[in-house]
Amino acid sequence: MSLQIEEVLYHEKSDCQDVMVLKSKTYGKVLVLDGVIQCTERDEFSYQEMIAHLPLNCHPCPKKVLVIGGGDGGVLREIVKHPLVETVDLCEIDKKVVEVSKKYLPQLACGFSSPKCNIHFADGFKFMADHRNEYDVIITDSSDPIGPASSLFEQSYYELMKKALRPNGIICNQGECVWLHLDLIKSMKNFCQKLYPVVEYCYTTIPTYPSGQIGFLICSTNPDSNLKEPVREFSREEIKKLGLRYYNSDIHRAAFVLPEFARQALED
Amino acid sequence: MSLQIEEVLYHEKSDCQDVMVLKSKTYGKVLVLDGVIQCTERDEFSYQEMIAHLPLNCHPCPKKVLVIGGGDGGVLREIVKHPLVETVDLCEIDKKVVEVSKKYLPQLACGFSSPKCNIHFADGFKFMADHRNEYDVIITDSSDPIGPASSLFEQSYYELMKKALRPNGIICNQGECVWLHLDLIKSMKNFCQKLYPVVEYCYTTIPTYPSGQIGFLICSTNPDSNLKEPVREFSREEIKKLGLRYYNSDIHRAAFVLPEFARQALED
Repeated sequence: MSLQIEEVLYHEKSDCQDVMVLKSKTYGKVLVLDGVIQCTERDEFSYQEMIAHLPLNCHPCPKKVLVIGGGDGGVLREIVKHPLVETVDLCEIDKKVVEVSKKYLPQLACGFSSPKCNIHFADGFKFMADHRNEYDVIITDSSDPIGPASSLFEQSYYELMKKALRPNGIICNQGECVWLHLDLIKSMKNFCQKLYPVVEYCYTTIPTYPSGQIGFLICSTNPDSNLKEPVREFSREEIKKLGLRYYNSDIHRAAFVLPEFARQALED
Repeated sequence: MSLQIEEVLYHEKSDCQDVMVLKSKTYGKVLVLDGVIQCTERDEFSYQEMIAHLPLNCHPCPKKVLVIGGGDGGVLREIVKHPLVETVDLCEIDKKVVEVSKKYLPQLACGFSSPKCNIHFADGFKFMADHRNEYDVIITDSSDPIGPASSLFEQSYYELMKKALRPNGIICNQGECVWLHLDLIKSMKNFCQKLYPVVEYCYTTIPTYPSGQIGFLICSTNPDSNLKEPVREFSREEIKKLGLRYYNSDIHRAAFVLPEFARQALED
């Protein structure tokens, strides 16, 4: 995958990683961390809407939400839209990512100004260990399992999330892609099933990610959850009012339907 | 999108186009026509299974099938597997593509040896004009609407296909991608709706195509068709016996569920 770049708008090493903002010819501005595209203005809505509204619409009353990572603000923008959400804590390890996004990617970073939102600059793994029985939904919007996000793909992190959830809580994590990382997804699904009674993998399409798609691992502590069926449907009017461009209730259901090779690997 | 290439196995200009077979590092052998990837050994099954089994499983009895294009043999391989198909005519404009595929891509080209199959080397548009009331299903496995395949994206071609179908016939055409070609898809869907009572767009994921996905335009001359619901379900055993790795009945249904931006553009 390559993009035609017109200009490097920002490039600096933060304490955690290499941070770059590019202006591309056809995908708008692009945030790149450690050389990997995190989001482009043209297609970011797919990822942000899906990682936010999938778990939020699986929970009967997602009042208090935690985001780990997500320093570009895009996931936050979607969560604060949600009518039932009252408070969002966002814990980002790299202050620079938030600063840069506020300056160069204001359409993503707009969620930071919501009165529902509290920002914490800290290591997500450590933050999680300090919180117990607090959140209805936890969303981990991480980069890949190399670099600062690697601990967020380990079993011990999933154990901490479980403790940080209130009863009937739901987690949703960036879960890589079945075309490229099927073994990693399988091993993560396996250890999740030891911790959570309901574990599902689903995905969204997004042109600028490797293979054109990215998945999510969603788990519930409520054994009666059916994550494939949203507990609330947004009407056409709500979808327009919320400015959704990817997520709707049918896409929610379809996101869990895997190609046969992935279904056999993950569900048989 | 870029692939690491280890070797150019074949490269020549045919009468119609530039034909190349490459050996890639991680996607196996790759067929390239006029500089555009047509298929790689690693992910071709997604496209071939979906363009074949989606329309075949929308038809109650697909005895006689026509393929326009598809000279690599992959779509043919899937069609001849289908238990109800008795005869397949394949019309390819470029003899060289068939020769090269037989030599370098035998896993794709294996369908050519089926006794169900008749090959015709001719222009698809002209071939269609010479056939009336003959086929249950017509599949157009074309390259993009630039070069030798351009006439296969025109309204007049869809008129000819309609005449070449038997009653209650179904067509399925390579239909480009909603992330890149939404206007083209919309205009094609519009002219199809003047000709066919049922017109749907659906898609599959495939890493080596631009944006990581490719769509299909499926139309039925039977106004009572519901293309989103297969008329027959392959059991788990049949799927294994047929060697399917992408298609199953749930993927069939999910393939028609569009992201909200595409749904609004194509369905509202």
